[in-house]
Amino acid sequence: MSVPIALRRPGDLGRSRLRPPRAAAPARTGGSYGARPPLHASASGHPLAEPAITRALADRAREIEAAFAAIEPALVALAPRQFEPGFPERAAAELATLLGVRLEPALLRAVWNAPLDMADLHARLVLRTFARLVERSARPPAVEEGEPVAEVIRRFGFHAVDVATCADGRLGGLLDHVLRVPPAIVVARKSFAGALFDVEEAIARFERVELARWREGRPNPASEPTRYLALGVYHFSSLDPEHEGCAAHGSDDRRAAAALLERLQDFAEGVARRYGEAVRPAILLAGVDTDTDAVRVHVPDAAGRMLLDRFVSSLELHARTRALSREEAKDEIRRRVAAVIGVPPDDPATEGMRWFCGYLLKNNIAQVEAVAARFGGAYPDRGHGERLILVGDPVDDVQLRNLAFQAQMRSIEEGEADLAVGIRLLAARLAPLGFAVPVLVVQSFDAALPGADHRAARRAFQMRAALERRFASGASPCRLVVEAAIRSAAGGPLRFLNRDETPNSGLRCGAEGRIP
Amino acid sequence: MSVPIALRRPGDLGRSRLRPPRAAAPARTGGSYGARPPLHASASGHPLAEPAITRALADRAREIEAAFAAIEPALVALAPRQFEPGFPERAAAELATLLGVRLEPALLRAVWNAPLDMADLHARLVLRTFARLVERSARPPAVEEGEPVAEVIRRFGFHAVDVATCADGRLGGLLDHVLRVPPAIVVARKSFAGALFDVEEAIARFERVELARWREGRPNPASEPTRYLALGVYHFSSLDPEHEGCAAHGSDDRRAAAALLERLQDFAEGVARRYGEAVRPAILLAGVDTDTDAVRVHVPDAAGRMLLDRFVSSLELHARTRALSREEAKDEIRRRVAAVIGVPPDDPATEGMRWFCGYLLKNNIAQVEAVAARFGGAYPDRGHGERLILVGDPVDDVQLRNLAFQAQMRSIEEGEADLAVGIRLLAARLAPLGFAVPVLVVQSFDAALPGADHRAARRAFQMRAALERRFASGASPCRLVVEAAIRSAAGGPLRFLNRDETPNSGLRCGAEGRIP
Repeated sequence: MSVPIALRRPGDLGRSRLRPPRAAAPARTGGSYGARPPLHASASGHPLAEPAITRALADRAREIEAAFAAIEPALVALAPRQFEPGFPERAAAELATLLGVRLEPALLRAVWNAPLDMADLHARLVLRTFARLVERSARPPAVEEGEPVAEVIRRFGFHAVDVATCADGRLGGLLDHVLRVPPAIVVARKSFAGALFDVEEAIARFERVELARWREGRPNPASEPTRYLALGVYHFSSLDPEHEGCAAHGSDDRRAAAALLERLQDFAEGVARRYGEAVRPAILLAGVDTDTDAVRVHVPDAAGRMLLDRFVSSLELHARTRALSREEAKDEIRRRVAAVIGVPPDDPATEGMRWFCGYLLKNNIAQVEAVAARFGGAYPDRGHGERLILVGDPVDDVQLRNLAFQAQMRSIEEGEADLAVGIRLLAARLAPLGFAVPVLVVQSFDAALPGADHRAARRAFQMRAALERRFASGASPCRLVVEAAIRSAAGGPLRFLNRDETPNSGLRCGAEGRIP
Repeated sequence: MSVPIALRRPGDLGRSRLRPPRAAAPARTGGSYGARPPLHASASGHPLAEPAITRALADRAREIEAAFAAIEPALVALAPRQFEPGFPERAAAELATLLGVRLEPALLRAVWNAPLDMADLHARLVLRTFARLVERSARPPAVEEGEPVAEVIRRFGFHAVDVATCADGRLGGLLDHVLRVPPAIVVARKSFAGALFDVEEAIARFERVELARWREGRPNPASEPTRYLALGVYHFSSLDPEHEGCAAHGSDDRRAAAALLERLQDFAEGVARRYGEAVRPAILLAGVDTDTDAVRVHVPDAAGRMLLDRFVSSLELHARTRALSREEAKDEIRRRVAAVIGVPPDDPATEGMRWFCGYLLKNNIAQVEAVAARFGGAYPDRGHGERLILVGDPVDDVQLRNLAFQAQMRSIEEGEADLAVGIRLLAARLAPLGFAVPVLVVQSFDAALPGADHRAARRAFQMRAALERRFASGASPCRLVVEAAIRSAAGGPLRFLNRDETPNSGLRCGAEGRIP
């Protein structure tokens, strides 16, 4: 679908009932909090700003926001006409033109005693709009200085980066905005409540990458002494640490960091015990301030040891490097990264990891600058503002803060506590406004495997059924509108599954398979 | 635990209310059915019989049957004394002596208006007896002629055998009795209703084995041109084909075979597409007649192609080879295997697979002979007689026909249809007798990984809760008694999890993690 989005007047953006009106932006030079350095964009631009990337990201953000903002007015305009003859087809056509998404006319059929279910329609349009944005996905250019980033990272000792983070929607821009790492180096990005990833599953991912290195020398031969890097990202709120931190850890950033660090250590130790010290993965802990997108990088020492209180803050570096030249600023980052673990800036034992930490910090300073420039300080909305919940396999094509609460799981059974956090968060905002919570179950498949799409559809159906059984009953504080979709793991459009489609099971027929 | 089992008089065996009384054994020379060759044990022994192995298996079978048969009389004897002072401790001690299992005395506390819950106790004793038998596991010796079987199999071109079969309890003796393959060559054995295994999971297992070959040359280096062999086993009933075949396929053996063959082909094709033709796994389809334990082996041709109607039957070979010498009998098997795919017995293109098919047939003929010798023909009980349901990870240490309905799954959500079949089958037999269905959730873990036992316990708790939510309510036709246990993947005792134990979550505290 390539129907253009009807952009509303700029003044309309962000005024949807879906999100509370934004607080007036603080003065540019204000926004200081506690002992932290005052945050403001340099008048002449920060030496580490990446204006081209920031512009591309901002354009994309505006496109995404406009697409969602157009949904409610479209429905408001349709509501009074719902009983007119020929309405379903006309309305479907109008929605296609206005929003670029297709809704089955049957969903738009109103009867005098069964008017349109607007909450349901709204949620479905949110999900389809998300799918349209995935289809039009355009990841921003990577920050590259000469050499492709993936090669530089490999040269510094890492052949794959596996990112585990929190399901919290405020981390929805983690890869493109906050870390600004190119998709090519990220072997996986998975989100869980509290970032608490599954160790066994993470080891299985390591094994898959390792097999490709042995068999095919991809991304590099196993004989090269590069490492698999597991990056764990927790989050906190610098402006309202007691309330707007990680819900899964009681908004306690120390607890969030400690739990994630333990998980990372279990992962590295597990791989080392199973396959030997020679392939022990590197691990790195980082925290994101959801108010500013600034990061804390817990630089590991030569032994790989990280401390909760030992980190380099990009917010601080952003301030420190403001008046420097670009090269001086990069030197300053290198100095700080070395200093925090007490090694000289040319220490060979920690070189690769220090480079990677510096790379993340440098990238992130550009984002801190972008947020400061756009909002004159921190984000005006500190809290949650997710538009939908994504359950199942990850979708990273649309990156934006507060876009989606994204909880990876293989079954609702294992992930229901994570999902419950997301439903509670979205329901708290949407239910009082009469909206339903849009939930998309996504199952991806390897298109190279015969029948994999059918099996993915089967899993998606199963997951949707389990989700509805678990949450969409009277037990839930809010209406959910759940759709299921499958997608090739290589990317491409999401394929929504019709509710009356049945999974191509072909296995259980007759009375035998029925639940007793 | 090594408390000896109190063996009851032989005449008592099999007379428990749990199993319908056996029909009188047919005369030794009777038991013919339709056009099939008459089945009887040779008076002087079949040339391919393996008396030592058969004896070891029979001893083990008697031990298992005696252990379960002792449960009911023990409870019958305890019931009238339940209100005596000091009963709980004394009863626990008596059960420990009689059955070799330990029950918490609290479970044995009767009050005048709350007498002992005998159905619950019985089910718990069944589960604990099963666990005790696992602990005392003694797999029979392998049929070896000079060289270890694993090496012979490798020499004939296969480095690993992955067995997928049906959850049906009548296949509970598949590995030790029916196929008589040593545990060393079986990389995995998993059961699903209708034998319909998960293709993606099977590919992941292939990858894990492949990684070990590349990294460690285990079981042999990846440079050796051996293949991974996926063996799919469906089942049928020669005596009552319309009713006692595979419940998941409507007792239609052709449908069961076709569905499994398709799954095997998807697996092989998937691996070949992902990793190239050079590592395409070998696949083999076989069917077990649950009345006689005879197998049909669908010998693949040089292109790996199998046909539903092209197979070699061990029942037929058992009859044909009866009067031959051992070497002549083996030659006859070789001739039949080659003839069925129309190649000469020295055809090099099919040599490895023909050898493996012959190996299975030869082993199985000894089992056909054992069943015929013991029962004078086929098993007197054609139908289901499972004593418990095993859910989750596989347990293969106790091998016996009709011991357990065993359904492998990662979550109840994905496996509930399989589980429903098992519950229906056991409930149909047990509920009318006032028994509950004993269900054991098993999660295994890699003891080398730090924290893996806690994570396994967490998964087991989750699975038990989901199972109870799904089945143990009014929706179920029968009471279920569900226990959860974890076990090292390397073997060893099952550790039961107390109901009041909580999984060591350490992640979700306060109100945040509660289900809304």
